[in-house]
Amino acid sequence: MFIHRYPQKNKWAELVKRPILKKEKVSEIIAEIFKEVEKNGDEALLTYSQKFDSAELNTVIVSQNEIDEAGNSVSDELKAAIQKAKENITQFHTSQQAGIQKIETTQEVICWRENRGIEKVGIYIPGGTAPLFSTVLMLAIPAQLAGCSEIILCTPPDKKGNINPAILYAAQLCGVTRIFKAGGAQAVAAMTLGTESIPNVYKIFGPGNQYVVAAKEYAQNYGVAIDMPAGPSEVLVIADEKAVPEFCAADLLSQAEHGSDSQVIFISTDLKIMEETIEEINQQIKKLPRNGMAQQSLDNSHFMIVKTLEEAVDFSNVYAPEHLILAVKDFEKYIPSIRNAGSVFLGNYACESAGDYASGTNHTLPTNGFAKNYSGVSLDSYVKKITFQYLSKQGLKNLGKTIEIMAEAEGLSAHKNAVSIRLKK
Amino acid sequence: MFIHRYPQKNKWAELVKRPILKKEKVSEIIAEIFKEVEKNGDEALLTYSQKFDSAELNTVIVSQNEIDEAGNSVSDELKAAIQKAKENITQFHTSQQAGIQKIETTQEVICWRENRGIEKVGIYIPGGTAPLFSTVLMLAIPAQLAGCSEIILCTPPDKKGNINPAILYAAQLCGVTRIFKAGGAQAVAAMTLGTESIPNVYKIFGPGNQYVVAAKEYAQNYGVAIDMPAGPSEVLVIADEKAVPEFCAADLLSQAEHGSDSQVIFISTDLKIMEETIEEINQQIKKLPRNGMAQQSLDNSHFMIVKTLEEAVDFSNVYAPEHLILAVKDFEKYIPSIRNAGSVFLGNYACESAGDYASGTNHTLPTNGFAKNYSGVSLDSYVKKITFQYLSKQGLKNLGKTIEIMAEAEGLSAHKNAVSIRLKK
Repeated sequence: MFIHRYPQKNKWAELVKRPILKKEKVSEIIAEIFKEVEKNGDEALLTYSQKFDSAELNTVIVSQNEIDEAGNSVSDELKAAIQKAKENITQFHTSQQAGIQKIETTQEVICWRENRGIEKVGIYIPGGTAPLFSTVLMLAIPAQLAGCSEIILCTPPDKKGNINPAILYAAQLCGVTRIFKAGGAQAVAAMTLGTESIPNVYKIFGPGNQYVVAAKEYAQNYGVAIDMPAGPSEVLVIADEKAVPEFCAADLLSQAEHGSDSQVIFISTDLKIMEETIEEINQQIKKLPRNGMAQQSLDNSHFMIVKTLEEAVDFSNVYAPEHLILAVKDFEKYIPSIRNAGSVFLGNYACESAGDYASGTNHTLPTNGFAKNYSGVSLDSYVKKITFQYLSKQGLKNLGKTIEIMAEAEGLSAHKNAVSIRLKK
Repeated sequence: MFIHRYPQKNKWAELVKRPILKKEKVSEIIAEIFKEVEKNGDEALLTYSQKFDSAELNTVIVSQNEIDEAGNSVSDELKAAIQKAKENITQFHTSQQAGIQKIETTQEVICWRENRGIEKVGIYIPGGTAPLFSTVLMLAIPAQLAGCSEIILCTPPDKKGNINPAILYAAQLCGVTRIFKAGGAQAVAAMTLGTESIPNVYKIFGPGNQYVVAAKEYAQNYGVAIDMPAGPSEVLVIADEKAVPEFCAADLLSQAEHGSDSQVIFISTDLKIMEETIEEINQQIKKLPRNGMAQQSLDNSHFMIVKTLEEAVDFSNVYAPEHLILAVKDFEKYIPSIRNAGSVFLGNYACESAGDYASGTNHTLPTNGFAKNYSGVSLDSYVKKITFQYLSKQGLKNLGKTIEIMAEAEGLSAHKNAVSIRLKK
């Protein structure tokens, strides 16, 4: 934990630095995996599952029977929670649907956009200790709303060759069309290249370890789009004298428990609030099952005292956090000043967990400073916006001269002629 | 020119193939250029200008004096045309501005999105024979509308060290904040890394040759976003018996004149229309100054006769053209079936040139089949959509149980605790 009192602006560049991700090392491994999957398809995936997941599989396909059984083994309580979250996520993402708005830019020249779902999308859900069924909701719900016709999901099996039932339940609930047992870079390779069982897709979504991240980048060489570049998860909490140290500590810890590379930043205008928050962290962390990871993350965290909330927001804009919690009284006042952030949580009761699971916003957000140039996942991530234009004969007459003059000035005679020949007719 | 009569569906995969772009060769050159620009900044740019543009420069900065002089040397007629185009482009892109829509997903749980312009963007405009001031309009107007605070433009100088006046005029008219004389991969490197004169930016837009395209891809390794992946320009024209062969020929030629690698496809349900279109092409091409390039492009073009317009649209969806012209009578009928295209031109008077210059739609569009998973440039390309949420104490009470159950099922106790600790208070 690093504590900074009134850090100078010229120190900020140092403070906003993220850990450097080593890419070079894995790139050869990724290229090899893609080559293997391209050559041997499903067979390659089964061999990798044996190697990396210690699972003996006959097929990568998850059967309808497995999905039905999963439905039976998820508790009614969890099902109800997942359904409630689904409702809210659906409601918020439905509000992102844009109607068709026809604009007559010049008389009888009419332009508009229409959205079309990307036909085939792939969702990757990591395995490991935490079964991230919440990410299934976040990535499948907008895909279905967007009208994507093929929504496939790949996730690694456990040692017995099974997928966590909550993942299967969420997937079928949210319109995933096919589920496959495949993990890591090889799953990304399969969704990029296609195998006998797994169709290739046009865009790949979802989190993962450094191999998955590198594989998604590599997939772009094959013309596949990805949701966004990735990095470790982050939270920046800004607290004034009305913040509640217990709550701040809990929010910082909920970020820290993600992993030892999680980024945690706390900025306050109030020394007492900061001291109490640190004290609270030291108390609360003891009770956490994942306290080892949380402690490692906290060891690298920054706690800052600044003079004004304006300065805190300025720093946040330079850092560009994935999650920004404004635990301040007059949060409305600071909203217009927020320029770079993935998702913003306002007041003392908007904890990050709300957005992580169930409030309705998407939890797939730009990390690593990418909030400066990328948005989080939304309905937009699943559609292409196609422009349309209709010009009547009169419409072209109204605009023709303008086009002819510009085309000529650019030295593109055929462009000009496409207008002239019509005007002459 | 390849002519296909009623091609079988199993031949389509062959017909939609794009020319393969050789990437490998240039990647070492790009890496070297980035290293050079990182090390020597402006000095490297001046040396490259000498080498590649045969221009002796003292500075890469375009002075206000040069911009003012450019204004004087552009004809009033061209100025008026540029202003008219600017009006239409502004009107259409303004219509893409999304208002704030607050959604109460659960009682007292309120979620919304707000747009923020990407703070620093860079526009690349190629040099060469055609001064692409129209691309300045297409890339700077939405940047200004989005509220990007720094909008820089790089373009190579001619041998005398000058920039085409129409480019300078359009840039200052559309809110470009700074203009630099730098071309090719080195300009992209400068906008990525920054030099003494050129600020680094968060997103780079604009067309270019294979070096520029490769440099934009390479820039992503430094966390810079780009507008979209690139390839040669394309048009697909669908014509029924009501199409006008003269117009179709003119549209195909206006695409073909872009360059020898331009992709041109013509599909008709009417043999006579196709034959007359080919005849018209042979007549019209004679009068074109760029007929050498156009002929090379046409040599690789496909002309197809199909049985129905539905089949033509199906083929188009598989090809995913940058530009799709529906020169058919009942074009409305086919709009819902269009799934993959960059921009669509409807009827006999909506020529591609209209959208290239002045109707209001953006002409920076996905090529090379990327219309399957990417949209063209729009206002969206210049903003981040930040999600916000406010939960009152009661709001968290209403949703808390759902969050707690899900967090627990994912094994993330600290996430659960961030809710529990608030509900207990």
